[in-house]
Amino acid sequence: MSEDKVKIVTRSEALLTGITREVLIGLHETEGVGRISIATILMYGAMKGQGSLKHVSDFLAGDWRDMGLNQKQAAAIVANLRPEAIIRMERRHEERGMQVVTYLDEQYPELLVQIADPPWVLYYKGNWELVHNPAIAIVGTRLATGYGRKVTEDIAAGCAKRMTVVSGLAKGIDTAAHSGALRAPYGTIAVLAGGVDVCYPPENKALYHELAAKGLILSESPPDTTLRPGLFPLRNRIIAGLSYGVIVAEAAQRSGALITADLALGYNRDVFIVPGQITSPRSIGALEYFRKGAIPVLDETDIFQSYVYRLPEASTALIKEEGSVEPRLIPTPLTPDEAKIYDFLLDNPCSLDELTIQSGMTFGHLHSVLLSLLLKRRIHQQPGSVYNVL
Amino acid sequence: MSEDKVKIVTRSEALLTGITREVLIGLHETEGVGRISIATILMYGAMKGQGSLKHVSDFLAGDWRDMGLNQKQAAAIVANLRPEAIIRMERRHEERGMQVVTYLDEQYPELLVQIADPPWVLYYKGNWELVHNPAIAIVGTRLATGYGRKVTEDIAAGCAKRMTVVSGLAKGIDTAAHSGALRAPYGTIAVLAGGVDVCYPPENKALYHELAAKGLILSESPPDTTLRPGLFPLRNRIIAGLSYGVIVAEAAQRSGALITADLALGYNRDVFIVPGQITSPRSIGALEYFRKGAIPVLDETDIFQSYVYRLPEASTALIKEEGSVEPRLIPTPLTPDEAKIYDFLLDNPCSLDELTIQSGMTFGHLHSVLLSLLLKRRIHQQPGSVYNVL
Repeated sequence: MSEDKVKIVTRSEALLTGITREVLIGLHETEGVGRISIATILMYGAMKGQGSLKHVSDFLAGDWRDMGLNQKQAAAIVANLRPEAIIRMERRHEERGMQVVTYLDEQYPELLVQIADPPWVLYYKGNWELVHNPAIAIVGTRLATGYGRKVTEDIAAGCAKRMTVVSGLAKGIDTAAHSGALRAPYGTIAVLAGGVDVCYPPENKALYHELAAKGLILSESPPDTTLRPGLFPLRNRIIAGLSYGVIVAEAAQRSGALITADLALGYNRDVFIVPGQITSPRSIGALEYFRKGAIPVLDETDIFQSYVYRLPEASTALIKEEGSVEPRLIPTPLTPDEAKIYDFLLDNPCSLDELTIQSGMTFGHLHSVLLSLLLKRRIHQQPGSVYNVL
Repeated sequence: MSEDKVKIVTRSEALLTGITREVLIGLHETEGVGRISIATILMYGAMKGQGSLKHVSDFLAGDWRDMGLNQKQAAAIVANLRPEAIIRMERRHEERGMQVVTYLDEQYPELLVQIADPPWVLYYKGNWELVHNPAIAIVGTRLATGYGRKVTEDIAAGCAKRMTVVSGLAKGIDTAAHSGALRAPYGTIAVLAGGVDVCYPPENKALYHELAAKGLILSESPPDTTLRPGLFPLRNRIIAGLSYGVIVAEAAQRSGALITADLALGYNRDVFIVPGQITSPRSIGALEYFRKGAIPVLDETDIFQSYVYRLPEASTALIKEEGSVEPRLIPTPLTPDEAKIYDFLLDNPCSLDELTIQSGMTFGHLHSVLLSLLLKRRIHQQPGSVYNVL
């Protein structure tokens, strides 16, 4: 099945098919069934209408072949969706200490829904709430110079005062980005190409454990995935997809980090470049992105300036100079109605429509309650009038 | 008289007053009469109407005082405009080997007419025709790093394939800019703060002589001007004023080169920055101009790209890899009418209107002759439909 066949199924279309998250995870973990096959299944379901994928556990191989899957795929799916197989799968996640979020779930990252080919399933270790923060990716060459590592660490620490820093745990620039961001309140997310239960590269063991404890490690790859080169560009799309924009700190021509920059441009996200010497082969690949409209970054203020209307206002109270990610709440008293809405949002980010239904408040009253919570900096408004707690 | 009293008198308004270039030079060289006093005199003349300044050599001190000059200025002007004083002045220019161009002259640089405070008089040594080329300024710190000098020389050599490079003959970046540009066909112009007959800084004697022989050295300052700090920003306005844009190669915070950048922004000209390390104190002043919309430059193609609609088309025939400025003409046969127009333009750049009058051709025919000359790359069209030979 060729790449150009990929079509997006919206989350509500997917939910209407009646497919369950367990089935989606089961399909995702079936050998030989890739993200394009899953897209095909969901599209088929959406076409067939409401509830069409509700009972897929009972489907026979022939039913799966009718959707365009081949015999081997169909047989593997039937075996993998048996209740005992699902239980084994869930036990495996538990044993490896990994949690799972699917495209069907409310807590799926808002920005990732917007890309052309969102991952159907994400595995993670650590603090999932970080995906709901405003995020900026920082990527670059594994063969970073001392200059590159230093400025990356500084810029990452600066950015993480108001945004979560997303990177790929690779050597060089990625490592510097995570290290810098771990020092600041909004912390950092590592997106791995392989499973989240395996530290790759192995040299970054200490950083990996720190990220699992204080940040977030996530991946599209199920446990026991064998690393192969093709997984890295797929990983890069998640780095770009989770982020408002991508900072390239240092990259030679044809560096893999530039794939992330290209993906960001394709998703209409910003690309930022840290200036370096035009004579440096380690910089020139990044610098050439100025010709595609990339924005120069001298420090985090250049990033914040680009998102001045999307970031919650800077508050020194929010910023703890050195230390961990936790203490971000300022205790301001809430009215009973505010507390009610706040509690709804504590469970999950909600849209204005969902809040109207759940709260039973009039639209006008709900609006004033939300405004008050925004002003008290207890919640944050995402694009599309979706609210989450801060 | 305060700075905000400066008002521009257009060249045609100035010509209408009947003032002669000798008088303008005489005023400019009168001790105590600055560019603002001259602006006042010209404004007064423009207000009084046609021919009002035709006979100023006969004016008495009282006439000058009526224009708002003080007693000392008036007396000095009367003495300086006596025929024998004018002859002495012209002999002095000749002795020093300097030529003079005034605001009243057709060969006054087109781009310099457009700035808010054009110099009334320019002195020069070398090849005046360079001022009619498309030009780019390259400026930066006197305390350049090895990196800064190297990239400046390369970018200047690249730019001078299609544009004349303007700089200030200072140590560091300016020196590298002139040196690089001297290797390429469009050459380089040095704008001095002091008189063009004095090499400042004295260390640049060899470069100064090379510029006088193969490039152009110009200044607003009359012979025997004592250098003072205030002359450098005035000089910088000429560097910015002569150029489509200003490249800052390396500059610390508060570097004088940034004055040139600010002036360029004030004249609605582009500012370009050569990227450097954000940790370098010698770069940071320049890099901060990215926040004012400056354009990153990796090589000359970034400059040419910015002026793609204003530059004559690149032609390898025009480019002599190493060597002097001269050989730029490609021998293509001209029709008699083309030769006639070409000869007019050899004397002076002319506007379309002037050519219509001088040639006696119909507008339509003249237009087709000019188009043919443009296509044969014998002439160049400047802004405002002014044509000059290439």
